[in-house]
Amino acid sequence: MDDLLKTAHALADAARAPILRHFRSAELSADNKRPGGFDPVTAADREAETAMRAVLAEMRPDDAILGEEAGASAGTSGLTWVLDPIDGTRAFLCGAPVFGVLIAVHDGARPLLGVIDQPFTGERFTGAPGIAELTRGTEKRALSVRRGRGLENAILLTTFPEVGTERDAAGFAAVRDRVLLTRYGLDCYGYALLALGQVDLVIEAGLQSYDIQAPITVVEAAGGVVTDWRGGPADQGGQAIAAGDPALHRAALDLLAPFAA
Amino acid sequence: MDDLLKTAHALADAARAPILRHFRSAELSADNKRPGGFDPVTAADREAETAMRAVLAEMRPDDAILGEEAGASAGTSGLTWVLDPIDGTRAFLCGAPVFGVLIAVHDGARPLLGVIDQPFTGERFTGAPGIAELTRGTEKRALSVRRGRGLENAILLTTFPEVGTERDAAGFAAVRDRVLLTRYGLDCYGYALLALGQVDLVIEAGLQSYDIQAPITVVEAAGGVVTDWRGGPADQGGQAIAAGDPALHRAALDLLAPFAA
Repeated sequence: MDDLLKTAHALADAARAPILRHFRSAELSADNKRPGGFDPVTAADREAETAMRAVLAEMRPDDAILGEEAGASAGTSGLTWVLDPIDGTRAFLCGAPVFGVLIAVHDGARPLLGVIDQPFTGERFTGAPGIAELTRGTEKRALSVRRGRGLENAILLTTFPEVGTERDAAGFAAVRDRVLLTRYGLDCYGYALLALGQVDLVIEAGLQSYDIQAPITVVEAAGGVVTDWRGGPADQGGQAIAAGDPALHRAALDLLAPFAA
Repeated sequence: MDDLLKTAHALADAARAPILRHFRSAELSADNKRPGGFDPVTAADREAETAMRAVLAEMRPDDAILGEEAGASAGTSGLTWVLDPIDGTRAFLCGAPVFGVLIAVHDGARPLLGVIDQPFTGERFTGAPGIAELTRGTEKRALSVRRGRGLENAILLTTFPEVGTERDAAGFAAVRDRVLLTRYGLDCYGYALLALGQVDLVIEAGLQSYDIQAPITVVEAAGGVVTDWRGGPADQGGQAIAAGDPALHRAALDLLAPFAA
């Protein structure tokens, strides 16, 4: 496990340089991956994933890789590195420091450990067995979710007001209409803030496995819970709900259940 | 003007300490200023404004002050310091580093200079005659808006999907439906990103004068334009549109005009 954690940090370190080189650069432009819509990818996404794959080739050559930009590479160890070089490319394109590099290791059953890294602020959120911490330069802070808030006092985060499909959006609205405050636009950074005990719920839909596996490890290490909208495992993507408080998680699940995929 | 600028920086410096002390602290709680809704204010807002007023009492005792939390204090110089100790208290409450301290000087006709300061990232966006810059520690970067994008390639920022009144929201939607990408949740930080040339439009409504005066100075210094939805001065709050490109500003104004207050 120590070797995996060391590798995860080496990956996050490797991703920072290309990302910071492109962040807010005048030359930055986005290609669109989705005909008829806008799913941007930039040179920063591609270069950061390439840099991480080079580290894995060196440090963990027998592990498989699943990356957002370059797809799947087979391995023999039974472990898979699940990488999203920039989660929140839209925020990245806007120059807003609320995107993140997502790194997780999956053992075939579940994600074992992971990192959410924010290169511009220098924040790194790490979740692993026995480890739940935010580091920023030489500062270190334990991650721990907050508990004891009901729906009426909860802060809810998500990425888009238009969450996934119309059905997804209706489920989201059922919870949104009951909470104290809803904030948008945070991508993976929302899960980091949940692990930090700053907010109470993150609800999303239309996720890929590489969007959610690192957040699962960080939130769970901080004492929180992440499931799909039926209360089952969320590591394969789709609909996800993260909560710090188990009772709040159940209350939100009750509202989401009619809209579960 | 040098003395005003020096004072503005002293104010931003003074606000950072109380804000960083409360940011992400376990003890942070919010009082609600709006019966029937949620307009949070925290000890950080109050202490940051108090710290700024103490600096003004020392450095500019003859100027008037208009602050979000402590209201108006009369002066004799004809200049007014317009202060929002935390613009984006909701983001602050969530632990997200996209709030800002807003400081502007108004001469009775228009805002002369201003600062948008982000204490956690250490970014300070300054706009004044002949000065348009982002500083972060010892780093310095010129602020300059970008031009040449039409509506169909524009990035639009705003704070809430629910912009102001229903009429305001309809105006916002008329532009949102035409642009490439819309992002939410950024408060004053959106104007900073516009001045940095990262995005193309910011559209908001229901603003107070202290929400918009510092953004006006920073965006204008960077070569952009900020008006109300009729194309007139926006410094008294209400509806605002900021753009980097004058042609894009006109195109968006055409769409907003039917919804102008």
